[in-house]
Amino acid sequence: MACLLSGAGSTATREGQYRKLTGVPFTEVRIEDDFWAPRLRTTREKTLPHNLMWCEKTGRIGNFAKAGGSMQGKFEGIYFNDSDVYKVLEGAAYVLATHPDRKLEKQVDEIIEKIASAQQDDGYLNTYYTLVEPENRRTNLRDKHELYCAGHLFEAAVAHYRATGKRMLLSVACKFADHIDSIFGPDKRSGVPGHEEIELALVKLYGVTGEERYLKLAQFFLDERGRGRSRELYGDYCQDHKPIREQSEICGHAVRAMYLYSGVAGIAGITGDRGYVEAMERIWDDVVHRKMYITGGIGPSASNEGFTVAYDLPNESAYAETCASIGMVLWNHRLNLLHADARFADIVERALHNGLLSGISLDGERFFYVNPLASRDKHHRKPWYACACCPTNMVRFLPTVGGYVYAHSADEVYVNLYVASTAEVPLQDTLVRMTQDTRYPWDGDVKITIEPASEATFDMCLRIPGWCKDARLRVNGRPLSDFEIEKGYARIRREWHPGDVIELELAMPIERMKAHPNVTANTGRVAIQRGPIVYCNEAVDNGGTVFQLSLSRETELVAEHRPQLLGGVTVIRGTAVVSCAGSWNNMLYRPIAEPKTVKCVAVPYYSWDNRERGEMIVWLPETPDLAEISGADTGTPQSKEE
Amino acid sequence: MACLLSGAGSTATREGQYRKLTGVPFTEVRIEDDFWAPRLRTTREKTLPHNLMWCEKTGRIGNFAKAGGSMQGKFEGIYFNDSDVYKVLEGAAYVLATHPDRKLEKQVDEIIEKIASAQQDDGYLNTYYTLVEPENRRTNLRDKHELYCAGHLFEAAVAHYRATGKRMLLSVACKFADHIDSIFGPDKRSGVPGHEEIELALVKLYGVTGEERYLKLAQFFLDERGRGRSRELYGDYCQDHKPIREQSEICGHAVRAMYLYSGVAGIAGITGDRGYVEAMERIWDDVVHRKMYITGGIGPSASNEGFTVAYDLPNESAYAETCASIGMVLWNHRLNLLHADARFADIVERALHNGLLSGISLDGERFFYVNPLASRDKHHRKPWYACACCPTNMVRFLPTVGGYVYAHSADEVYVNLYVASTAEVPLQDTLVRMTQDTRYPWDGDVKITIEPASEATFDMCLRIPGWCKDARLRVNGRPLSDFEIEKGYARIRREWHPGDVIELELAMPIERMKAHPNVTANTGRVAIQRGPIVYCNEAVDNGGTVFQLSLSRETELVAEHRPQLLGGVTVIRGTAVVSCAGSWNNMLYRPIAEPKTVKCVAVPYYSWDNRERGEMIVWLPETPDLAEISGADTGTPQSKEE
Repeated sequence: MACLLSGAGSTATREGQYRKLTGVPFTEVRIEDDFWAPRLRTTREKTLPHNLMWCEKTGRIGNFAKAGGSMQGKFEGIYFNDSDVYKVLEGAAYVLATHPDRKLEKQVDEIIEKIASAQQDDGYLNTYYTLVEPENRRTNLRDKHELYCAGHLFEAAVAHYRATGKRMLLSVACKFADHIDSIFGPDKRSGVPGHEEIELALVKLYGVTGEERYLKLAQFFLDERGRGRSRELYGDYCQDHKPIREQSEICGHAVRAMYLYSGVAGIAGITGDRGYVEAMERIWDDVVHRKMYITGGIGPSASNEGFTVAYDLPNESAYAETCASIGMVLWNHRLNLLHADARFADIVERALHNGLLSGISLDGERFFYVNPLASRDKHHRKPWYACACCPTNMVRFLPTVGGYVYAHSADEVYVNLYVASTAEVPLQDTLVRMTQDTRYPWDGDVKITIEPASEATFDMCLRIPGWCKDARLRVNGRPLSDFEIEKGYARIRREWHPGDVIELELAMPIERMKAHPNVTANTGRVAIQRGPIVYCNEAVDNGGTVFQLSLSRETELVAEHRPQLLGGVTVIRGTAVVSCAGSWNNMLYRPIAEPKTVKCVAVPYYSWDNRERGEMIVWLPETPDLAEISGADTGTPQSKEE
Repeated sequence: MACLLSGAGSTATREGQYRKLTGVPFTEVRIEDDFWAPRLRTTREKTLPHNLMWCEKTGRIGNFAKAGGSMQGKFEGIYFNDSDVYKVLEGAAYVLATHPDRKLEKQVDEIIEKIASAQQDDGYLNTYYTLVEPENRRTNLRDKHELYCAGHLFEAAVAHYRATGKRMLLSVACKFADHIDSIFGPDKRSGVPGHEEIELALVKLYGVTGEERYLKLAQFFLDERGRGRSRELYGDYCQDHKPIREQSEICGHAVRAMYLYSGVAGIAGITGDRGYVEAMERIWDDVVHRKMYITGGIGPSASNEGFTVAYDLPNESAYAETCASIGMVLWNHRLNLLHADARFADIVERALHNGLLSGISLDGERFFYVNPLASRDKHHRKPWYACACCPTNMVRFLPTVGGYVYAHSADEVYVNLYVASTAEVPLQDTLVRMTQDTRYPWDGDVKITIEPASEATFDMCLRIPGWCKDARLRVNGRPLSDFEIEKGYARIRREWHPGDVIELELAMPIERMKAHPNVTANTGRVAIQRGPIVYCNEAVDNGGTVFQLSLSRETELVAEHRPQLLGGVTVIRGTAVVSCAGSWNNMLYRPIAEPKTVKCVAVPYYSWDNRERGEMIVWLPETPDLAEISGADTGTPQSKEE
């Protein structure tokens, strides 16, 4: 079957009949800040070549050449390694979309040729099966990730086509999608993938091709879930314990869950399926209010790379996979588009600035797979993993970060993230150019200059973050009192003229956060948060150890920007109590003793493990009454600049 | 081989050439207090008949009749169920030793006849193998517990012989021991049991028979450990990862470890083996200073019923099996006899009064297998378990509690536990009758009246508990100043006359205990301890919930004895803070808010779950500064009398 492109060459999408908002793609948003822009440059200059090099070096790319016959040798690595190549290509495509680069484009084209060569005549494409056990294709959907790899191929193909207009990879993708569609479906073979991904990818493939079959195939895989014979075999690890519309609790493997529900949210945006919308609402409530780390990380348990029970959020053993935080962003972004509700964008912001960004080093070439909230110097980023899902996920996610800043309807502009940037937002009646000036996330002052192509009446909807208790607005210098906040957005409807200026002031005090009392891991503990940034204490800033520190409720905390530290961060300074100083002498239990105090410095959680190795902790114990404590200011070394 | 009895009919023991002390057996100690005496009565009148009934009802006793041919039918239950019958018989023997009872003796004799009938001609005795797979005897020493069951048979036999002078069960035991000895040994078959127990039992069998072969066989099983081919198969779960003399850390299954090391300590007391003595020292340091709950419970993890890593002491998921606490007492008692060092008796006291005693209900007929330090109303005692090791361990342990009170050498009397009691201690030159008057554990005043058969010079060594910071002594009313404390014992050497009185005052203030800062489960938390008693807060005394309570450092705590509550306990009253009151509204994280206060009551940990079901917690969070808190004394219901 041929692959028909709707609006060939355009970047138009067919998604979203039922959803309230359309995202402004990252290609239309130019980030010009000190926070994200350096990260994007590092992603292009370091992370992408690093990932390409590792895919080459570990035989991941060679597997395609071998399957295509242009290279001799056996399959190398893990059976789902094809997906890593697709994800890196997807990242490369996003980079090409904003930063054309002939050398990179050529490199990408060569890889695509190898991929195309590995495709079988019937459209099937998976180098592991082709090279190792061709007779067993599709016999183990639960474990062997064929459909998962297919999904990543589709995402890469859509990205590459949109970035370059070239159809080669998209044709490969469509041919494979057609092959899958010829086998699975309501009147054909039943079955669902053990690792979800193809569902959201088919929605994207539908978006770029307009091919209804892909949408229906995505819908089929979603509707089959929890119904088929797989149910007992897959269980809740794969969210296959009951039909999606009957699900109420988040469970199982966290990345699987996020990819699945991203697909569901995408489909719900197109079809308006109430059952899906309501299930997402219930599951969101469960994860966000009972099973999410303050960093936005999810999935506390290593044993299933996923969820356990409500409020089980251990810090030191937190799994909180980087990919799961990325999935949390993908899913909440789609829910935000579906509902135009800022509580979803709040989660995007939380995960993005904390548990997701922690996944990559400042130099862009080392990665966390696991993101604990406390560490005794046993946990450090690595350049690569045999199971390389996290590095390859970072390289495809980071270039798209501009795509989370704005969204729109016919006559509304939504500002979801505050990032110094320029953007073009296509409303029904006019194209709106906007410029954001802000030092966010270090400062809550935001100035937005609006340049509609011509005077036009529309709504500017500015997200008031859930963490903010005092937001003020001015338009062209005049304060707006009693502005309406609707679903977390301050809404300003008026006729906008070129050069109009909105000023938003989000009070950003240092907050001592508490966890719900059922989170026993954090009983008696506080975490420091300022704006969207969650802080941690690292050994390097705190005299070499942080596990004995605790924080008095009375002690003053001070925010201080340090432009030379960790790429430029605002640190939080204060006085901590060494609650169990000195004299333990091998005792395990003893009566309470008087503590002493030391100076302490907290840095953003995402920035930890970029300097000297050592302990790290997010949730510090609260100390009883500091007043009587003697020996204050014994001092610790100044935090070391990177 | 015949079973030769040394000093037939006597209760003399041949153990202990190298150990410093001999325990005064429970048969020579008459407990007359309000704490243990009612427990002993309940054990005789309730727990023992209850256990016998369940052994009958579940086919455990019937298995012996079936194996002996006097009853038809298949083997019932788990393959190690024989051990339960042996343990209950051991308990029954201890009861008979102090409380002759013709009916019970007859019942015991009938069970012994069934056991004897099940013994094979070659001496082998295990109803599971005889009835289910006789061809596979001894083919799976790791999992199938034949030698474990044998050990419990030997212990029961020794107890029964000592209590009644009857040899029937002892003959069965010796015949089985001879059978095992004919197969295993340095020049015979190699092998160690997967579940240790036979080692300490063989030491006992040697003690009563004087038969060196049994001692050597015990030594063989100990020396083989960590050396054999089993090493890879068994691993550290069975303490088989390296030879015992090379072991330094406690690991694996907690009950296995305790039984093994009890055997090691017993052998070391006889042989003086330095390698064993030093290994015990290292392992003791590891468990007591890094891996023990404040209740004396050990083995935090359910997955291996055992140990994990240092300082991993989660409260709610604590496994802390009742049998492991019993094992902790058995082991530390032996180490105390070996070294005459009170730090071991401190652990006996801690486990005994807390994590062991919690294993049984006040009515004597319900049991904890697992002893968590916090519970959300999901954990309650049960009358029986399919794996019934804990109920049957309580019934054989409790009658012997008097045996932990005194020990002696040729010219020293050691007082290890404070219990109102009378005892006879046989020194080399004289028999010393002693009377202890005390309200311990509720009060630290102890009066000991000494009645040597005639005037004699010897040392009275009184344990000064590790928890006590202020101990005073008087002899015949005159204060002793600057008395010597040697290895935790206050030593008084003089010529004692009949009627001499020692008065010991152990200050017993309420202590707020802290755990070592590496125990992250308890960071910012305190536990209440008074004397040897660890306290907990139960829902029933605290307005229905305890997980939101925290304790201010400033609040006064008051001890109050309530004779009608829980069999008579001293409770601790105070004011707690509800740190996270009310308004969470489904939030998972929020900035700190002002708390309110309520009255709270703590009861001894061992006594929890004897009234209305509900939450329980040992380690309460410490609250910052109470001074500013408003809304104090909103009150909670008075604790309900049982």
